[in-house]
Amino acid sequence: MALLPIKLYTAPTPNGFKISIFLEVLGLKYDSQIFDISKGETKQNWFVELNPNGRIPVIVDPNVKGEGKGEGEGEGKGEGEGEGEGKGEGDNGGLVLSQTGAILQYLADTYDKEHKYSYPFGSIEYYKTLEYLIFQVSENGPIQGQANHFVVFAKEKVPYGINRYLTDTKRIYDVYEDILSRNKNNGSKYLVGDRYTIADFALLGWAFRLPRLNIDIHSWPLLGKWFDELTQIPAVQRGLIVPPH
Amino acid sequence: MALLPIKLYTAPTPNGFKISIFLEVLGLKYDSQIFDISKGETKQNWFVELNPNGRIPVIVDPNVKGEGKGEGEGEGKGEGEGEGEGKGEGDNGGLVLSQTGAILQYLADTYDKEHKYSYPFGSIEYYKTLEYLIFQVSENGPIQGQANHFVVFAKEKVPYGINRYLTDTKRIYDVYEDILSRNKNNGSKYLVGDRYTIADFALLGWAFRLPRLNIDIHSWPLLGKWFDELTQIPAVQRGLIVPPH
Repeated sequence: MALLPIKLYTAPTPNGFKISIFLEVLGLKYDSQIFDISKGETKQNWFVELNPNGRIPVIVDPNVKGEGKGEGEGEGKGEGEGEGEGKGEGDNGGLVLSQTGAILQYLADTYDKEHKYSYPFGSIEYYKTLEYLIFQVSENGPIQGQANHFVVFAKEKVPYGINRYLTDTKRIYDVYEDILSRNKNNGSKYLVGDRYTIADFALLGWAFRLPRLNIDIHSWPLLGKWFDELTQIPAVQRGLIVPPH
Repeated sequence: MALLPIKLYTAPTPNGFKISIFLEVLGLKYDSQIFDISKGETKQNWFVELNPNGRIPVIVDPNVKGEGKGEGEGEGKGEGEGEGEGKGEGDNGGLVLSQTGAILQYLADTYDKEHKYSYPFGSIEYYKTLEYLIFQVSENGPIQGQANHFVVFAKEKVPYGINRYLTDTKRIYDVYEDILSRNKNNGSKYLVGDRYTIADFALLGWAFRLPRLNIDIHSWPLLGKWFDELTQIPAVQRGLIVPPH
């Protein structure tokens, strides 16, 4: 039973990279549509129907049975009457999912049945993977994202913000180095156990953008090695390009 | 087979509330140890062994088979030699887990077999719940947390930060109101489907702290009602006290 391609709405951003990397690693077929965030393309009504948060990435997996449009038939923001038009390409049934943490977990659960990049549901390692995945999406991503804002994007120079978020970004990579250091004592170079998981791929999306903050991941010896090895994997390299195929 | 009580390391904070609420809702036995974050108690070596990120909440579930100490025998931060002492109460085996998103998902998967507050693994609703749970831990929590910092805790008044995070906090509650509005069209008052889930309980932990920002959740009609109904549930009320029993 051949799988239909997954639709990926994305952009060349750290959060976008996470998903294209993992789709490539899993060898899944997908069609990507790349948005220009600066033009507000993720705030179009048809896209907000797919993701009420109006942000990439979003996947639509047509291989899922069930209505699966989720809230696709709801209204847009605010009072939202009569916005049912402009349905968008994703509105063809299937599972609609946003939030990188949820997308990565869904893809691993569904398409990595041999557990090459995951652990069996219910195992200790399954939840340790989820723990570090959520550390990524709830601390590394948000804090490094705020650092990017204050260092790169803010039209006003706000030293308090620059210092606050650069300091915390570095602290978070200290924590990751600590995790790798503990695992190294067990002979592992991965965040969890004996294989790369979505915890690693999620972090990689953001680690890839550290140069923007003038931070070199090789300042952390184990993270530097981890980064170099991961980015030599051809599938990972393809995912970091986010090819519009 | 009687369950052993789960150990909960926590504090009366939004992230702490999430876990004590859900433990109470599930009717699970637990022993809580309440930390004074302002005194740096979460940065003690024995606690950092449990959670390399040095933050509450953390659970230790002794009912899980396997070594389960996770990295409990690793070193502390930095070079970390010879810090194996001070093992801490959690170091008695069992699953050690941090990050509220991971803890809530673990508790639902493990202790809500009847799916009173969750959906079966692999279902569309399971992943929609995860999507909104991760929206909470990756946007609502971090952004409202930054708003708290700039409005309440920062020693310096930084208008840029105050405005940025108050604005985004409100935008995020707009999104939640939109989600409830779409679901209302399907006859639901919940974030996902026909029951409260960890997506609701996670948001409640932070919604409870909106008064600190002088924001009234009743400014959003559906969220206001959602909040009033949830906070009338006795188990939820107990969880919001975080009783040290």
